Amino acid sequence: LNSTAALRSIDRNPAASPSPAVRVAISRDTLRALLQQLLKVRAHTLAITAPLSAEDCQVQSMPDASPIKWHLAHTSWFFETFLLGEFSHHYVPFDPEFKVLFNSYYNAVGAKHPRLERGLLSRPSLARVVDYRQHIDAALGAFVSVVAEADLRTVLERVTLGLNHEQQHQELMLTDLKHLLSINPTAPVYYANAPHPEALTNENPDRATQWISLSGGLIEIGHDSSTQATTRFAYDNESPRHRTFVEPYAIANRLVNNGEFLAFINAGGYRDPSLWLSDGFDQVQRGGWAKPLYWQQDSRSHWHEFTLSGLHTLDPEKPVCHISFFEADAYARWAGARLPTESEWEHAATHATSAHLLLQRDDQLWQWTASSYLGYPGFAAAKGAVGEYNGKFMCNQFVLRGGSVATPAGHTRTTYRNFFQPEKRWQFTGIRLARNQPQQR
Amino acid sequence: LNSTAALRSIDRNPAASPSPAVRVAISRDTLRALLQQLLKVRAHTLAITAPLSAEDCQVQSMPDASPIKWHLAHTSWFFETFLLGEFSHHYVPFDPEFKVLFNSYYNAVGAKHPRLERGLLSRPSLARVVDYRQHIDAALGAFVSVVAEADLRTVLERVTLGLNHEQQHQELMLTDLKHLLSINPTAPVYYANAPHPEALTNENPDRATQWISLSGGLIEIGHDSSTQATTRFAYDNESPRHRTFVEPYAIANRLVNNGEFLAFINAGGYRDPSLWLSDGFDQVQRGGWAKPLYWQQDSRSHWHEFTLSGLHTLDPEKPVCHISFFEADAYARWAGARLPTESEWEHAATHATSAHLLLQRDDQLWQWTASSYLGYPGFAAAKGAVGEYNGKFMCNQFVLRGGSVATPAGHTRTTYRNFFQPEKRWQFTGIRLARNQPQQR
Amino acid sequence: LNSTAALRSIDRNPAASPSPAVRVAISRDTLRALLQQLLKVRAHTLAITAPLSAEDCQVQSMPDASPIKWHLAHTSWFFETFLLGEFSHHYVPFDPEFKVLFNSYYNAVGAKHPRLERGLLSRPSLARVVDYRQHIDAALGAFVSVVAEADLRTVLERVTLGLNHEQQHQELMLTDLKHLLSINPTAPVYYANAPHPEALTNENPDRATQWISLSGGLIEIGHDSSTQATTRFAYDNESPRHRTFVEPYAIANRLVNNGEFLAFINAGGYRDPSLWLSDGFDQVQRGGWAKPLYWQQDSRSHWHEFTLSGLHTLDPEKPVCHISFFEADAYARWAGARLPTESEWEHAATHATSAHLLLQRDDQLWQWTASSYLGYPGFAAAKGAVGEYNGKFMCNQFVLRGGSVATPAGHTRTTYRNFFQPEKRWQFTGIRLARNQPQQR
Amino acid sequence: LNSTAALRSIDRNPAASPSPAVRVAISRDTLRALLQQLLKVRAHTLAITAPLSAEDCQVQSMPDASPIKWHLAHTSWFFETFLLGEFSHHYVPFDPEFKVLFNSYYNAVGAKHPRLERGLLSRPSLARVVDYRQHIDAALGAFVSVVAEADLRTVLERVTLGLNHEQQHQELMLTDLKHLLSINPTAPVYYANAPHPEALTNENPDRATQWISLSGGLIEIGHDSSTQATTRFAYDNESPRHRTFVEPYAIANRLVNNGEFLAFINAGGYRDPSLWLSDGFDQVQRGGWAKPLYWQQDSRSHWHEFTLSGLHTLDPEKPVCHISFFEADAYARWAGARLPTESEWEHAATHATSAHLLLQRDDQLWQWTASSYLGYPGFAAAKGAVGEYNGKFMCNQFVLRGGSVATPAGHTRTTYRNFFQPEKRWQFTGIRLARNQPQQR
Repeated sequence: LNSTAALRSIDRNPAASPSPAVRVAISRDTLRALLQQLLKVRAHTLAITAPLSAEDCQVQSMPDASPIKWHLAHTSWFFETFLLGEFSHHYVPFDPEFKVLFNSYYNAVGAKHPRLERGLLSRPSLARVVDYRQHIDAALGAFVSVVAEADLRTVLERVTLGLNHEQQHQELMLTDLKHLLSINPTAPVYYANAPHPEALTNENPDRATQWISLSGGLIEIGHDSSTQATTRFAYDNESPRHRTFVEPYAIANRLVNNGEFLAFINAGGYRDPSLWLSDGFDQVQRGGWAKPLYWQQDSRSHWHEFTLSGLHTLDPEKPVCHISFFEADAYARWAGARLPTESEWEHAATHATSAHLLLQRDDQLWQWTASSYLGYPGFAAAKGAVGEYNGKFMCNQFVLRGGSVATPAGHTRTTYRNFFQPEKRWQFTGIRLARNQPQQR
Repeated sequence: LNSTAALRSIDRNPAASPSPAVRVAISRDTLRALLQQLLKVRAHTLAITAPLSAEDCQVQSMPDASPIKWHLAHTSWFFETFLLGEFSHHYVPFDPEFKVLFNSYYNAVGAKHPRLERGLLSRPSLARVVDYRQHIDAALGAFVSVVAEADLRTVLERVTLGLNHEQQHQELMLTDLKHLLSINPTAPVYYANAPHPEALTNENPDRATQWISLSGGLIEIGHDSSTQATTRFAYDNESPRHRTFVEPYAIANRLVNNGEFLAFINAGGYRDPSLWLSDGFDQVQRGGWAKPLYWQQDSRSHWHEFTLSGLHTLDPEKPVCHISFFEADAYARWAGARLPTESEWEHAATHATSAHLLLQRDDQLWQWTASSYLGYPGFAAAKGAVGEYNGKFMCNQFVLRGGSVATPAGHTRTTYRNFFQPEKRWQFTGIRLARNQPQQR
Repeated sequence: LNSTAALRSIDRNPAASPSPAVRVAISRDTLRALLQQLLKVRAHTLAITAPLSAEDCQVQSMPDASPIKWHLAHTSWFFETFLLGEFSHHYVPFDPEFKVLFNSYYNAVGAKHPRLERGLLSRPSLARVVDYRQHIDAALGAFVSVVAEADLRTVLERVTLGLNHEQQHQELMLTDLKHLLSINPTAPVYYANAPHPEALTNENPDRATQWISLSGGLIEIGHDSSTQATTRFAYDNESPRHRTFVEPYAIANRLVNNGEFLAFINAGGYRDPSLWLSDGFDQVQRGGWAKPLYWQQDSRSHWHEFTLSGLHTLDPEKPVCHISFFEADAYARWAGARLPTESEWEHAATHATSAHLLLQRDDQLWQWTASSYLGYPGFAAAKGAVGEYNGKFMCNQFVLRGGSVATPAGHTRTTYRNFFQPEKRWQFTGIRLARNQPQQR
Repeated sequence: LNSTAALRSIDRNPAASPSPAVRVAISRDTLRALLQQLLKVRAHTLAITAPLSAEDCQVQSMPDASPIKWHLAHTSWFFETFLLGEFSHHYVPFDPEFKVLFNSYYNAVGAKHPRLERGLLSRPSLARVVDYRQHIDAALGAFVSVVAEADLRTVLERVTLGLNHEQQHQELMLTDLKHLLSINPTAPVYYANAPHPEALTNENPDRATQWISLSGGLIEIGHDSSTQATTRFAYDNESPRHRTFVEPYAIANRLVNNGEFLAFINAGGYRDPSLWLSDGFDQVQRGGWAKPLYWQQDSRSHWHEFTLSGLHTLDPEKPVCHISFFEADAYARWAGARLPTESEWEHAATHATSAHLLLQRDDQLWQWTASSYLGYPGFAAAKGAVGEYNGKFMCNQFVLRGGSVATPAGHTRTTYRNFFQPEKRWQFTGIRLARNQPQQR
């Protein structure tokens, strides 16, 4: 998975490990309950494909996307490889060829089918991949009784990781599907009836952005793996919790909306290089960019937006979506503001949410930050293959914070770090502005 | 269609048109019978897809190939566009968007969906495309009664063209499918039980090639559209019949076989630039070519060949297949021979066949000739969109003669001109050698 | 050299060799005279560079072109490799590294510096390459006395080949230089004062094209190597002389001029796919073609043409130049005509020239023919490295006939076959039309 | 310039401007002295080209590099555009076409000649570009007397910026030249005699790396533009000086040397994906990387290094050079360490240098840091065209600190931020390691 992170290794630093008393708390019943929760999550993965044909599930519409069928298989492969194959000694792989076919990027596991050729595999069929899922589900259902006592803690961690991995793919399935349908000249509808996953709202009774001022200082961000270990999952890239210094700043209470972004377009924003990073303006020219990814202008110059429920008239009050970092950065410059750093975002999300000041925090769109995706001070990737989950992608990507309409409920948290390259637009990404505040002396 | 040709326009030269007496022969009954034959041909197109899933029919495995679903739709579009839409005044298109989606390359018809993106259209589904076929079949079945008397002759010609067009796509479906399955690491089987379309034979009781000597001279080749007009179809690129001078030559009685080609490989044929055209050797190096397209060597150096019925041990006596012009040309040079020109091939096919001298003439593999694909003297493409069928491709391609195991029975004739670029290998293409003969004085 | 051909091997067929009496005619004096002629030709090569700076001689402006410095070195390498190194036993190479650096495409000679990187070699400097030329010239001057008696005939043939090779590079130097200067925004002048090499004329007192009718029939074309061997040089690709059948045809007495081509542009010729080969229209769209290579339109829509003497107002009566095969073919179709085959061109050049009917035959522009560049019946490339001169390029190119303002005087003849890919435009190429004639019965 | 930054705008925040008393200090004499210093710097630029031919100065050997001739012209264009053209009212441009030809990337100045085509301009010649330099030098020499009193401060700042810009190009000229010579199979020598610019030393009497421990804390880094404004230049990207929190860490006292890096190679470092960032390993495979850029292994497996003084046997004690960020990062991981952040580097350079603990700080090789190149908190690019100098490149690059053997003496400082993309190797870049320290409590 491109936008994720491996299980935080609680044993990395022996001195920081939970005490024996805490370890006792991990019982077989805990695992049983977690596996039941997992099976419900996995059932939802399949439910996402209900309105889709075998053909819809076959196609890879661009290099960044994967076929829905591949997602279904890979999320099963994940449990077969990292759970059943490792901790269930009698487990027989469903099909030995799947080991290579559905390995995404784990070099430690061995060979991988080329990423760009995922859509060329008409076999196995969708039906067989669904069989594969059911085979894995059955094995997971029976798994609790075959785990060795000594493996319970590790297994619990792996199941938790796998559950979060599955949820991440649920979001990717929707974004990949949206791209696939968007390039079809017939503008197909994924799911016509409400409630559908693309329920962007315009929850700003007073339309003008409110600026929330925060004084910053020497703050702490990140996940504290030493004390929260058994109660709360976080990816390894959210740790360690650490100190960082933040100057006084203000952050917008809501996301930039379509109407505001339209003003940027109408002001010539896409044609003025002084607003853009150099790489960004190169991308604008190379890609012929003049609008967000899924906007369309009809012959009468009216604006429409392609969504999973088809083409709709653009609603100026809904948050602007499918925006690259480059566009978010240029818009912010044009608006006399800037993007928040991830420290600022996390600080505000922690301190401004309680007072209901920070709207659209994590249920609408991922929010680009001004921070490159790098390891926190003291970060070390988990050992083994699952250590490839996050750490090896810390280069040439920017951090997004929050969550989106396509993110499964409860999946994210204030320390969550999503990340994509600055030119990517097919995720549910939007803009929250920030600005400097004069220092109070 | 890439490898075809438009209907010979018998009205191009008024003076050469058939006499009124001949015209009388075209009755409505003739059209009725032809339409019935067409529907049988079209039923076979669908039958080819019987062992395939919707996913198999969705994928475009490389730029040269098209999805099976696209073939099914395009061959229906052909009749909708050039027959029903033009001669059936009450005909309502099945879906107006199909006009663009399934236009292959007819600029005169209007816009086209980009060729390289055919595999990205998950909608319309296979089921809907099959509905489309049935809609067209029904309209064709009822068509005979709605054709105006004055259109009978033109309609008959168009139906004939469409029937031949449909047959060409039947062969392309098999070659495109073979490529799709070949790139799947699981080596899937299309059709395990005999009789399958890939029935290459080794019909050479005495294995050594026999050379058939012909004296040539001022011969005639090509289709005579003036006298055969009403009795025999030919594409426009087979006309006019014309004189050409051929030096004495000899032609091999059979195709080069796998064992012979293996000797070329083992002699370092793929590594010796002196055997190759310059563009050919560039292609060998760029593509890492060291064997025919579908050959595989296992870990014990045994050779296998991927076929529509799966992987098989290489049979040294079967004709070598999936050979580019470049490889055929290099092999011939290595063997001290050359490829025949298309004049030589047609002359031999006409004069040597009756005596059962020329084996494997048109039922095994297409045979590369040394002739570029150009218009015959006096050639003119048909008027209108159907004139785009053949003429506009007369550049940078070489002529193939004969026919293959994948060609529908009765589809080709001795004047038939197939053509592909010299680096293409996914068609059922093989090698027949020729050589110069000293002049008899 | 891309557009050339190796020495016709007179010994290929022993029975056809000249008689001993003829052989006697090749004396050391003949060789001495030929070498003197060669040195004059080589002096002219250097004279071409007189107006150029070292920088002008350094740059490779596109993959098809080579730096002037490279031409100077390669034409010296040719004599060092194929003459001095082979027949002068005491010859010491000027610099052993040059063997690889200046090998153009002779696989039999060994490794080659990559063609696309010729312009990246700042060393050896131009001055050192000129030293190299002088070293070779000195060795050629002293060469006559060191040749063994037994080698005289072969050496004479090689010197002749090298002289013609040198002349071909003289033309290529001008075309490559013209391209280099053309991409410079400052529109530099190569040679301002007359007489310069780009002296296109408008020698048609009565402007309308005259059509010369020829009856064709079973004619002969090509170079007769058996009888002309000692008196006249021809490349191997011009042989053997052979019979070919030509239908009655007419050929234009002059080349298409700028005014006529402008009418094609103004009629939308570049935008109408029905006029173009499919590959040609793809090229038009990919390259954004809307005019001949070196035409420019100023802000007031006036047309200018970049030449070696700078930018000039377009003269409507001069022949249109720097035209690809695709453009020539499309123009001919638009004009209701076609391009001549090379048989037709050679036949007309032989029979219509004496009566001064065929104007601008070989002193203005190369003329695209409708013929692919293939070997004549019975063609076999010369043995050894010089056999790579022509034969290995017989693929995906079209034949041009005639000669151009940039061709050294006396270099071509009616059997001469030049060849380039159909999209190339940087040579001095133009259009002569032909059309079918009704048969006289 | 790719690796630079625009003049810090001291007027950005009026409240922070120097007091009137300070302003008085900028007299015409100060400007006169600075201009004299500038002319000496510019004379050195030309001196770098002394051993080079016009051809050496013409070639652009890869997209990242520029021709030496272009550097000479662009550094003159810089003064013509940003100084003479703006502040000398009677100044006449040397050649109006140069405005576009030698604009590097300043969109605010107007059109630019395409970067990838810099090497294709044989005109203007090197001689004319040298004339251009002399013309600018003369104008700069006379400039002090024509500057308006009111412009003195701004002019002084611009001259300072231009002087630093000129120095940056001096380093780029050497790195671009080194690449050009390196791809020449003859391994040419730029400058055989000592002292040459590539004087890498092995100044580590005891070879083992010493680790310098620092306690970090809430430190300050960056240039303080408010108090140092008139005494010390810094680019805008070095400001503002700001607080940042640093955990305890250790930093290596010297750079990684060739012997150590060879151990990484011999241990299979280039073949083990677990050591690399994902993008890094992709680059390794795509580029076939198995060693630093300029290392060569001869037929007896001995290692050599290409330098500006030719090929030399690899010295295991000299610092390893021409290393990408990807290689530095992978090496550090293999060595059980990491790269320092730029905060750590600057902190160590400030506090550890005085005690002579930090060897090879800025006179050997640029040192990759783990920090992405982003704006400091409160950073704002300068207004106008010079604001394009640094800020628009803050994306997908990593910061390098220190300086190199090719950096002009006195050019850098501890706050200096150099930056390149993580795959670049043609700069003089090396590795200094860091590692975490347990917290002292």
